[in-house]
Amino acid sequence: VTRRITLLGAGLVGKAIAADLCSDFDVTAVDADAAALERLRARYPIKTLAADLTDAGAVRRVVRDADLVIGAVPGFLGFRTLETVIDAGKNVVDISFFAEDALLLDELAKRRGVTAVVDCGVAPGMGNMILGYWVERLRVASFACMVGGLPFVRTKPFEYKAPFSPADVLEEYTRPARHVENGCVVVKPALSDPELVEFEKVGTLEAFNTDGLRTLLKTVCVPNMKEKTLRYPGHIGLIRTLRDAGFFQKTPLDVSGQRVAPFDVTARLLFDSWKLREGEEEFTVGRITIAGEENGRARRITYNLFDVYDRATGITSMARTTAYACTAVARLVLENRFVRNGVSPPEYVGRQEGCLAAVLEYLRQRNVVYEVSEE
Amino acid sequence: VTRRITLLGAGLVGKAIAADLCSDFDVTAVDADAAALERLRARYPIKTLAADLTDAGAVRRVVRDADLVIGAVPGFLGFRTLETVIDAGKNVVDISFFAEDALLLDELAKRRGVTAVVDCGVAPGMGNMILGYWVERLRVASFACMVGGLPFVRTKPFEYKAPFSPADVLEEYTRPARHVENGCVVVKPALSDPELVEFEKVGTLEAFNTDGLRTLLKTVCVPNMKEKTLRYPGHIGLIRTLRDAGFFQKTPLDVSGQRVAPFDVTARLLFDSWKLREGEEEFTVGRITIAGEENGRARRITYNLFDVYDRATGITSMARTTAYACTAVARLVLENRFVRNGVSPPEYVGRQEGCLAAVLEYLRQRNVVYEVSEE
Repeated sequence: VTRRITLLGAGLVGKAIAADLCSDFDVTAVDADAAALERLRARYPIKTLAADLTDAGAVRRVVRDADLVIGAVPGFLGFRTLETVIDAGKNVVDISFFAEDALLLDELAKRRGVTAVVDCGVAPGMGNMILGYWVERLRVASFACMVGGLPFVRTKPFEYKAPFSPADVLEEYTRPARHVENGCVVVKPALSDPELVEFEKVGTLEAFNTDGLRTLLKTVCVPNMKEKTLRYPGHIGLIRTLRDAGFFQKTPLDVSGQRVAPFDVTARLLFDSWKLREGEEEFTVGRITIAGEENGRARRITYNLFDVYDRATGITSMARTTAYACTAVARLVLENRFVRNGVSPPEYVGRQEGCLAAVLEYLRQRNVVYEVSEE
Repeated sequence: VTRRITLLGAGLVGKAIAADLCSDFDVTAVDADAAALERLRARYPIKTLAADLTDAGAVRRVVRDADLVIGAVPGFLGFRTLETVIDAGKNVVDISFFAEDALLLDELAKRRGVTAVVDCGVAPGMGNMILGYWVERLRVASFACMVGGLPFVRTKPFEYKAPFSPADVLEEYTRPARHVENGCVVVKPALSDPELVEFEKVGTLEAFNTDGLRTLLKTVCVPNMKEKTLRYPGHIGLIRTLRDAGFFQKTPLDVSGQRVAPFDVTARLLFDSWKLREGEEEFTVGRITIAGEENGRARRITYNLFDVYDRATGITSMARTTAYACTAVARLVLENRFVRNGVSPPEYVGRQEGCLAAVLEYLRQRNVVYEVSEE
């Protein structure tokens, strides 16, 4: 029989997930936006259901018959939706990038006998999975993950378009980054340590600290770990300028007789300016570096990713790279190749024999290629 | 008998004017700010009067006994205050930098038999006077005036402090610049044509178009005239970025349920960031270049200005350079060395025999030196 997948959220990533799974599974996409569902159904052989996912009862109802649930809702909804799905006893793979700690749901998932894989995208996601693979095989001394989604057309002043929610981008620009140095968690200011890095098909980019290690801070014991985000050079300087001049201030000021938080105005303006237009071509670039020791021999393994917008389907590279990491893991769960009661971040998937290789191969078939090299 | 001067406005420039004139004249300073007047009276032998200068009746009363009035009020009050003073039949020298066209008051001044000199600072001011001098002596082909007031301490991101009202600075950054090219008035966008220029005691600065020609657009016939403002390199790029990203937009946006003009928030933030602290040392740098032909011989004359904050008195360089240009002309008017019924911008002072030399000498005695050179 065909297995049933309930896909929660039919946004950019949800659409790519539906497109990837609809030929092998019975996919039901659920979203509050009936028009988005209609567009999806016109294009792919899936079922759709309009429902308000802020309502836990609605979530319970739509997942009732699913063999697997995929969560791809907006970040602010992610945690509670995941909680509802786990509580309903459903296996779930989640790519809603939410701020809360997913491991808080581990107990519940264990009690319900549920396999829940979270943060299942690129970063977080593939970086975690790759590190998880290597911590089982090497004494890993350092892990560095740098990822960025950028437009091909560079337009001043920002030379940036947000392939996902600009609000989440601003969140990345303001939240301090928790990294690990010499075995200790260190908190770096947002936008700190800008460095220029070369990428083969892109040229020089600028990497800065972001708070992307998340679960890795708790799940692995690696003495040096950092996560950085990539932008065209100069972008971060402008953002720092805005921040330093007070434009990210959340405390309201008196402005012409009103109380206004500068951050709200800035967000409004940047959202307009950073909107990726329909059909605007973007790419994803990333580099994951693992250094360590194996039987006294130093090893340094690098994974390079460069993926571009798909003109044929109009699916963005951000959606491709994120969705296919998620669908690869979804298949592993459905095929019982990854089974683990509880909440598993991708590092737990990576450390299980055969999983990383299967995911990388699955991605390669979709032309999302992580090129591995070793010095 | 000692001549009586009524000084309208006891701000930064007014204070320097009072200090410069109080030993030779009977000075009465008028301002709405009683505390500012008190501080001034404690330091200098002058009279003071607290009065609301937005009230024309009050202006009439306080100028009644004056032999000369000096206008140094905030820009938004400048034009109507000047009109009241002229209408009261009083000679006046004005340094209130106002947006309106002072020549609109020329008729009134002529009818009242009043000598009114306006825009009597540095730029506008000394540039006009120097050009007025040379148009009488050369066939002037081009005039360029570049001036800036800058802090010695350069603090990122803006490396700028506003020695006068930050609102007027933002006005300079947003108003298109009217220049003259090949005999035609051309309108340049605000912040356009940035160029790097070297200054001996300062280093490299960046000049950009500003709308400072004002009366010169009507009063002289010179085929090429431009006025630029000087900043540390990079400043203008940041301001352009803010503008291009919409932060100078005056149309309100919906922001968290309120209607907010981004400009108002930006102004609020920059005002804080650009505030010159008490005692913070700044300087004024300027270059005025006149090129033309005299009896078939090409001439190119340059005036360079570099003036610094006065530690002894705490008077800023902006106030020194502005106030002493004004007081120099005030003396010429009181001594009947400059007499002209009507509204005279400084170019009319410059073209009158002996006036420029007297003003430059007066400034030199106060250590504000315009160094003249000719290639």
